[in-house]
Amino acid sequence: MNTEIEKNVRVELGDRAYDILIGPGLIARAGREIAARLKGKRMAVITDEHVAPFYLAPLTESLAAEGIQTFPLVLPAGEKTKSFEHFMTVCDHVLAAKIERNDAVIALGGGVIGDLTGFAAGVVRRGTRFIQIPTSLLAQVDSSVGGKTGINSRHGKNLIGVFHQPDLVLADSDVLDTLSKREFRAGYAEVAKYGLIDKPDFFEWLEGNWQSVFAGGEARINAIAVSCQAKADVVAKDERENGLRALLNLGHTFGHALEAATQYDSARLVHGEGVSIGMVLAHQFSARMNLASPDLARRVEAHLKAVGLPVSMDQIPGELPPAEQLLEAITQDKKVKGGKLTFILTRGLGESFVADDVPASEVLSFLKEKLGS
Amino acid sequence: MNTEIEKNVRVELGDRAYDILIGPGLIARAGREIAARLKGKRMAVITDEHVAPFYLAPLTESLAAEGIQTFPLVLPAGEKTKSFEHFMTVCDHVLAAKIERNDAVIALGGGVIGDLTGFAAGVVRRGTRFIQIPTSLLAQVDSSVGGKTGINSRHGKNLIGVFHQPDLVLADSDVLDTLSKREFRAGYAEVAKYGLIDKPDFFEWLEGNWQSVFAGGEARINAIAVSCQAKADVVAKDERENGLRALLNLGHTFGHALEAATQYDSARLVHGEGVSIGMVLAHQFSARMNLASPDLARRVEAHLKAVGLPVSMDQIPGELPPAEQLLEAITQDKKVKGGKLTFILTRGLGESFVADDVPASEVLSFLKEKLGS
Repeated sequence: MNTEIEKNVRVELGDRAYDILIGPGLIARAGREIAARLKGKRMAVITDEHVAPFYLAPLTESLAAEGIQTFPLVLPAGEKTKSFEHFMTVCDHVLAAKIERNDAVIALGGGVIGDLTGFAAGVVRRGTRFIQIPTSLLAQVDSSVGGKTGINSRHGKNLIGVFHQPDLVLADSDVLDTLSKREFRAGYAEVAKYGLIDKPDFFEWLEGNWQSVFAGGEARINAIAVSCQAKADVVAKDERENGLRALLNLGHTFGHALEAATQYDSARLVHGEGVSIGMVLAHQFSARMNLASPDLARRVEAHLKAVGLPVSMDQIPGELPPAEQLLEAITQDKKVKGGKLTFILTRGLGESFVADDVPASEVLSFLKEKLGS
Repeated sequence: MNTEIEKNVRVELGDRAYDILIGPGLIARAGREIAARLKGKRMAVITDEHVAPFYLAPLTESLAAEGIQTFPLVLPAGEKTKSFEHFMTVCDHVLAAKIERNDAVIALGGGVIGDLTGFAAGVVRRGTRFIQIPTSLLAQVDSSVGGKTGINSRHGKNLIGVFHQPDLVLADSDVLDTLSKREFRAGYAEVAKYGLIDKPDFFEWLEGNWQSVFAGGEARINAIAVSCQAKADVVAKDERENGLRALLNLGHTFGHALEAATQYDSARLVHGEGVSIGMVLAHQFSARMNLASPDLARRVEAHLKAVGLPVSMDQIPGELPPAEQLLEAITQDKKVKGGKLTFILTRGLGESFVADDVPASEVLSFLKEKLGS
């Protein structure tokens, strides 16, 4: 265990400030880190059937060594688990475990487990302490930080949830070694996003060093820490997404629509892949609106393609619905105000901004063009 | 319409401060009051089958007159509606109605509709604007003020929910004329509670004027306004129940246990009746612990009895479970910290305080004595 390269990112939210620890061996050390911060002796651990075989026993042993009793619940893996039904199951499990106010609910898994568990922790007894142990790159750099929780509805993704900040995030960089290449890449899309929002230097660094980030070690921990810090800075300034925080949705409006269009079928498209295509579309749309150069869109596309991410809608296996239906999915997305469309667009590399008056007709013609319809 | 006797109580919560308007004719005037505060033109109205026939049409007409389109949902009446299933239905209805950020969700009904609807409004798009139009005395003086929302679980009452403050509360005093005597009395238990917490003068005033409060007119509006102000003051100081706000639970720990013991069967016991019995028990238990005089317990009992409220467990129709089971329900109640029992006890008339180290054994012997077992 090399703790020299461990990083600590602090999310500054007043009396709800918390640490994100990033580095190797953190699951094995979880008990100590948790016991140093929380007094409770009962913890519900929510995980999924893919993660449990690898990390549930090491985690519960580490907690047991500190005298903390665990109550595990293993759910099916996959986006479909972010449902009302599983939300009910988790709430019931936490209540049955008699988790009290100094105890906590632990999410051990990727974004799905984190979002679902955080929502349950946010509503059981109107708010229970909550710890994130993200096991995917996507969850480590994005969903585990910032307190957004939720489930999907038949009307769209993440439409039901609460803001509920964790008390601690443990991002164990070792666990990423067991991720599939595809899953790691999907998380990398969010890493690249922070560069494209407002860190042109970071994006350039990624263009030159992405292979080291994929390989592991210090470059990877650095990329995760820069990403967490970028998100923590935005969240500290705009916890409830009244303005600035919307920038984090770069690539997500198109991305969510594509996820909905593929019925959240991970065989066809996972979230990070949707974001990758969405970021390219956002840059292309910015060029079309004469906000940024087409060269920038090509540069972004080239980098995401180099790491092996999909960059256009025709790379999605199977049929896509017509442009009208994608637009319908976009208007049902959260980022709609008074009927006008809100998109994150850009004026240059790392110069993203919130455009809240995008004409639906422009989006429709753009999508038609891109779909070749 | 006599607006001279209308009262306005302001809940001081910074940028989430809001008005509670109390007086006659407010449902007919709802459109104007809402349009003066919110820009949105789409409102979901959640109500129940008892309330809808009387007030849904006047409300939607009043909103239509201001160009506001309504999307009504009529649910079954009764405590069982505070379930996961109906929560899902309400969330889905609000999403289907495409309620956006300047629009609102309106709860038109008693505490059940208010708690359920507020919870849904608190989680749809991670928080949607919310208006309370309480139609019972209980909801007007208690549940519609302060932002506590939630549903019941098989583990207990109100165990799942969020804090979500309304943007406006319209307490139309005319609607109380159509309440049954039993329902009005149940709400009156909460009115008396504010006196017993820390307003001895108000309790004395009620002892002398309760008949006018029951009759309607200015005394009733005054009693509602004093109650709302009392609650608003506590909520402004302790929105999330970290301390002071717990005082509002006077009578509720015993009361909730009795509600659970009667399976929330309103034929046997409604919430306010549980609170009435619970307040008498809390005063009797305070006397038993040598904190207050037995005379005070008798005085409280005499007043609640005079207005027609039940004051002892043997007035509840049907069998009650043994004392051990009631204690079990109390320990599963929200107000438990580190295994110790928290009760609101009193040192005198209007001198309630939070006792967080009550020995379970004392509660058990007290309950055994009271049940005559």
